Amino acid sequence: MSLTRIRHRALHGKVMSAAQAAGFIRDGMTVGMSGFTRAGDCKAVPEALAARAAHDPLHITLITGASLGHDTDRLLAEAGVLARRLPFQVDRSLRRKINAGEVMFIDQHLSETVEQLRSHHLAPIDVAVIEAVAITETGGIVPTTSVGNSAQFAQQARQVIVEINLSMPEALEGLHDIYVPQDRPARQPVPLTSPAQRIGQPFIAVDPSRIAAIVFTDKPDSPSNVLPPDDETRAIAGHINRFLMDEVHAGRMPATLHPLQAGIGTIANAVLQGFEDSDLQGLTMYSEVLQDSAIALLDSGKLAFASAASMTLSEPVYRRVIENLDFYRSRLVLRPQEISNLPEIVRRFGIIALNTALEFDIYGNVNSTHVNGTHMMNGIGGSGDFARNAHLSIFVSKSVARDGDISSVVPMVPHVDHTEHDVDVLVTEMGLADLRGLAPRERALRVIEHCAHPDYRADLKDYFQRACRRAGGQTPHLLDEAYSWHTRYARTQTMRRAPARAREAEVVLAG
Amino acid sequence: MSLTRIRHRALHGKVMSAAQAAGFIRDGMTVGMSGFTRAGDCKAVPEALAARAAHDPLHITLITGASLGHDTDRLLAEAGVLARRLPFQVDRSLRRKINAGEVMFIDQHLSETVEQLRSHHLAPIDVAVIEAVAITETGGIVPTTSVGNSAQFAQQARQVIVEINLSMPEALEGLHDIYVPQDRPARQPVPLTSPAQRIGQPFIAVDPSRIAAIVFTDKPDSPSNVLPPDDETRAIAGHINRFLMDEVHAGRMPATLHPLQAGIGTIANAVLQGFEDSDLQGLTMYSEVLQDSAIALLDSGKLAFASAASMTLSEPVYRRVIENLDFYRSRLVLRPQEISNLPEIVRRFGIIALNTALEFDIYGNVNSTHVNGTHMMNGIGGSGDFARNAHLSIFVSKSVARDGDISSVVPMVPHVDHTEHDVDVLVTEMGLADLRGLAPRERALRVIEHCAHPDYRADLKDYFQRACRRAGGQTPHLLDEAYSWHTRYARTQTMRRAPARAREAEVVLAG
Repeated sequence: MSLTRIRHRALHGKVMSAAQAAGFIRDGMTVGMSGFTRAGDCKAVPEALAARAAHDPLHITLITGASLGHDTDRLLAEAGVLARRLPFQVDRSLRRKINAGEVMFIDQHLSETVEQLRSHHLAPIDVAVIEAVAITETGGIVPTTSVGNSAQFAQQARQVIVEINLSMPEALEGLHDIYVPQDRPARQPVPLTSPAQRIGQPFIAVDPSRIAAIVFTDKPDSPSNVLPPDDETRAIAGHINRFLMDEVHAGRMPATLHPLQAGIGTIANAVLQGFEDSDLQGLTMYSEVLQDSAIALLDSGKLAFASAASMTLSEPVYRRVIENLDFYRSRLVLRPQEISNLPEIVRRFGIIALNTALEFDIYGNVNSTHVNGTHMMNGIGGSGDFARNAHLSIFVSKSVARDGDISSVVPMVPHVDHTEHDVDVLVTEMGLADLRGLAPRERALRVIEHCAHPDYRADLKDYFQRACRRAGGQTPHLLDEAYSWHTRYARTQTMRRAPARAREAEVVLAG
Repeated sequence: MSLTRIRHRALHGKVMSAAQAAGFIRDGMTVGMSGFTRAGDCKAVPEALAARAAHDPLHITLITGASLGHDTDRLLAEAGVLARRLPFQVDRSLRRKINAGEVMFIDQHLSETVEQLRSHHLAPIDVAVIEAVAITETGGIVPTTSVGNSAQFAQQARQVIVEINLSMPEALEGLHDIYVPQDRPARQPVPLTSPAQRIGQPFIAVDPSRIAAIVFTDKPDSPSNVLPPDDETRAIAGHINRFLMDEVHAGRMPATLHPLQAGIGTIANAVLQGFEDSDLQGLTMYSEVLQDSAIALLDSGKLAFASAASMTLSEPVYRRVIENLDFYRSRLVLRPQEISNLPEIVRRFGIIALNTALEFDIYGNVNSTHVNGTHMMNGIGGSGDFARNAHLSIFVSKSVARDGDISSVVPMVPHVDHTEHDVDVLVTEMGLADLRGLAPRERALRVIEHCAHPDYRADLKDYFQRACRRAGGQTPHLLDEAYSWHTRYARTQTMRRAPARAREAEVVLAG
């Protein structure tokens, strides 16, 4: 019955078990797997690979679109399979091994991975494992809920394993627009001039002779796990909404804004939800991921069209999309991430980029990735592709973390993912700092005033003023105490200075 | 006689003295001036403005292409005219005022300034002052030795002052290709697919009614002041040459390479000179500035074509170009810097980007701008436009400065202009570190081994190993000593640790 999903009949003989298919993956290989922010990842082959590694150890380089669902990264990491991993991950076990130096993790701009493969700066893909809803009459692979890097993986790999997911309806066919740029230096302009335009094919074209195995699965995607908005994320959304409306009223943007990009996660989701209550209409998204909020905006008509590399939805919203594909088909497109995130397009469209910061400093440099400057969280993802080339580059964060013991606004970030040049607007629940056209000393005052939590504002101002007096410069800093907030946290579990009263108490106790 | 240079006769009445023309510039205005790395800057009006400020104080925002010649920034800074300056400068007096917090300097990616003007993120240009060789029959402005941001300045300004430079031959007409992208979000792809292609007009189209004044001058450009190669820069050039030849032999690039970009300055010049001795042929440049070395490569036939936003030449090389314009006209084009530096094109062409670092750290983060993390040197210039989007992003530096008291390879840079994500290859006279496809811990070992000066290698390794042991993480650092090299230099004028023997001597003396 399920063989009807393999419309290129010559491939019927390639159907096998996941364990058999996993046999194509051997020690030392570079493997490219579908999957972008938990959507459209292959489910069966990685599991079989992890199971096999228990008795037959092997080490591979694993390249994906972005993060995987189904604890795949945990299974593979714990089975010792991952020697090298790129370009993004969100798994706790894998993260532990990365930070212990046991897995070599290459953190990359998400648009660049396949560019580096194409340029042979990375080892070539030996085996690609791609989730699909079907294989077409010509052997083309129809992806599921993400495209990610699958097109280039499949086209470059010596051998391709296709996982046909029977839980995904064949009606997903037609949602994808697969455009693959030419090799450089003789590349043509990518002809996209609006988010809704289609410039490619609805499947990944591959030579069917390279399809080495086909595996059937029926596991749905891991549902998204974003939290509902809280008071802080609602406040952040409110600041951004007002700011964008002001831009429209000042004549700096049309009422439909420019195409929006929103990073993955709870805050970005809340910001988009906030648009429901705004007067904005006819919006478009040109993003890497669509979350629940994007679907809700399509439903309400606020959003006219959404383009992305994946959709990462909660279970009920996924159901709604699947059951109403005819509605969404004319309002949604999924593209390769090198197109969804391409600097050429981001700059051409003048995208409004909304991304989440782990922390930022008073001059507007952003750390998106490294806890305390050393430990990898998830990776830079596509934030750099968008922030650098955006019309407006907005970064958001709550002003504090860990019950207020960590300030997200610090004197100097101990890891820079986005430099001050690439950050136009910073937002916390406290307010919004519009940094456009300001020099660093001006930025500092605005960031402290508008974004820092009141508990830390005086200390930040004190640092800034002493840095201006003692060091001076374009970007005043005191290098011997720039990281004192971080080292204090490591020592005392809080960035707060010991308050006078607490210090007295300590003295009394000590006495 | 010189009126023949004003072919739109209705404008003949606009000829006036520089002092009169400078009268259009009033307190509080935003002024856009031509000029990119000392080439094609206006010479007379800024001087008149500085003279006037002595008795009639005024403060302006000055925006240019990049740096100016003729001590213009010094004159204007010392006259107190500059309240705000962007996007680049190289002047000692201005730098002093910037670092004292007296002039607000906005350091920008050079492709982005006019984008921000177009988006109204910066205050609009009140007056543009543009150097030209002629005004066409339709009132079009024919630039001189640079295009820079002149096109957008002239098209946006309420009033335009043209400085016709009689020392520049009219035969420069035809060298320029002025293409101005449409406003966003409805922008078309920039149709450039090779460095030699022309997609615009040979002049800046403006409404002649906005040309408020025309001034005649005859001062040549300030000649370039790059130093001749020395042993270190020759060694750096040798490493890069060998690396590129290896790339060709490995089949990762054609024998003509990809189009080259080379930053301004002595090292970049030396690297290009080094190509003379290589087997490379049929090269192209797609760069922001052409220095003497590019002209020499055109002369020798190594370079088939060169595209840039300006040419910054020594006096004899400038003469050679001017006297042989027929030869160079088919081998050279000057474009607006938003096109020469456009991420869309840099990515499409797969450019090889060669830029100079002030210092870099063991993980490959680059500081291009801030001495000791606080004091502005020149600005980021176009390095970010190129490095982020390049096929190969190469940064070069001598391994030490100040007679070896400063190591250019440090544990952590105190200012990040280019993150590890945007740096593929690092080169000093000691060697070349190819960082492609490596995780940070792997990068560190390679950078220390290949790039650091032997005097600092053991200390860097010691820092790295202790950071791995004590802190761990994806990017191991010891935050309490990450900047100890910089603070030691500030304290003792050297990054070297006091050697054991010297310490003993101190003890003996103290005893």
